[in-house]
Amino acid sequence: MLAALHARQRKFQVILISHGAHVDKLQELLDLAAQLSVPVKSVDRKELDAMAHGQTHGGVVALVGAKPRMTAEQLLDHLDRLKSPPLLLLIEGVEDARNLGFTLRSAEALGVHAVLIKKHLWDFDAVEVARPASGAYERLPLVQIDTTDPLVTLRRRGLRLYGCVAGAKRRIYDVDLTGPAILAIGGEKRGLSGAVRSICDRFITIPTAGASSLSLSHASSVVMAEAMRQRLINQTAGADPPDLLPPEPPDPSSA
Amino acid sequence: MLAALHARQRKFQVILISHGAHVDKLQELLDLAAQLSVPVKSVDRKELDAMAHGQTHGGVVALVGAKPRMTAEQLLDHLDRLKSPPLLLLIEGVEDARNLGFTLRSAEALGVHAVLIKKHLWDFDAVEVARPASGAYERLPLVQIDTTDPLVTLRRRGLRLYGCVAGAKRRIYDVDLTGPAILAIGGEKRGLSGAVRSICDRFITIPTAGASSLSLSHASSVVMAEAMRQRLINQTAGADPPDLLPPEPPDPSSA
Repeated sequence: MLAALHARQRKFQVILISHGAHVDKLQELLDLAAQLSVPVKSVDRKELDAMAHGQTHGGVVALVGAKPRMTAEQLLDHLDRLKSPPLLLLIEGVEDARNLGFTLRSAEALGVHAVLIKKHLWDFDAVEVARPASGAYERLPLVQIDTTDPLVTLRRRGLRLYGCVAGAKRRIYDVDLTGPAILAIGGEKRGLSGAVRSICDRFITIPTAGASSLSLSHASSVVMAEAMRQRLINQTAGADPPDLLPPEPPDPSSA
Repeated sequence: MLAALHARQRKFQVILISHGAHVDKLQELLDLAAQLSVPVKSVDRKELDAMAHGQTHGGVVALVGAKPRMTAEQLLDHLDRLKSPPLLLLIEGVEDARNLGFTLRSAEALGVHAVLIKKHLWDFDAVEVARPASGAYERLPLVQIDTTDPLVTLRRRGLRLYGCVAGAKRRIYDVDLTGPAILAIGGEKRGLSGAVRSICDRFITIPTAGASSLSLSHASSVVMAEAMRQRLINQTAGADPPDLLPPEPPDPSSA
């Protein structure tokens, strides 16, 4: 709840505190609520229990609106205000809320500025996504995309779309991820959709050993960490201009 | 089950196949069973249902022993037979079976030769660990360590113990992970134990941005991927001798 208040994205209607709650432990919450003009009411614990539908609540429940999605237009404004080259993550085909939550948590920790998700992913229970995301769900801009149009717009703005696919010739270590970039990763069953593949600037792959593969959330972490590594090294070394892109050969894994 | 048969670590007592199962889909399983002299019996579907305790079984159930743990002595033999410098993962304080499973899966995919786990981790339900591990649980050598003695032995054999801790001065990108190495990662609540910290050769940290941190399984993936990246680059460039280690300054995060 603190993360949600700090993030200032959701609309807080009211915060309800149980009569028996220790107010000294809630000081930060109360201060923030006052600052944001969110009313705070003291109620019976039973009332909170009923509202929390059997979930634990620690004596505090807030009535809040859903976390708002960032629109494609707002995303462009957001990117214009960044001081470093934009790094976006596009995920397709996530299979469960928990993996999505962990992916968002890693994305924030690894310096991603916004996460783009295909529409049907919003079918997930927001609570199940938010729990493993550990605050990142509240803070990280999430953009719902129904078509590839926003991706085309982002490419026109100079972002390169890197499609992570199995069997690509280039490894993630062989491309320059320090410029404005979208890292696109597909689900474990189907990989990236044909629509996204058809507009990728580059296909890249994570080298792996043995019979195992990485899960979507772990593959995302490895690629995002590589982008962050390159950017950190670049900062230390003094930035080189990004390489020019010759035309991409046909997608190696769409056969 | 195929992964378990291929891995040849567990003792298979018998494989039971439902009368109605499509044998053509089970050909690889039957071939492997014959090769390993595992008896195969055809039984009623109801019998299988009862044995599987409500879990889905797809018409096949095997009676198997638990996956055997590799002893510290067997580990040393295993390392002697490797053709590349050993890369081990030591994890402490994993909180649930699912995260452990994903960590094992990533460890295998990122070239780790064995995973060392503190004793109490075996309290986890093996089925819950094996499912997200996607075969890696069967194939990857798992070594249970009760004390730090095996770590001391491994260090005497030339492996360096890298402790991943928050706030270490050196980033994972600043150390040479191409030599024989143990990557030690602690749980999110307490980090690495004092016992392990006290014998680390180096403390390293994953640089992160924003308010989020990485979960244990995602942090492991990032560090293991960095070790793999360095080893791949090293193979291409021709190996440099590893740097000599001056004494480690006091642990920055044990305050």
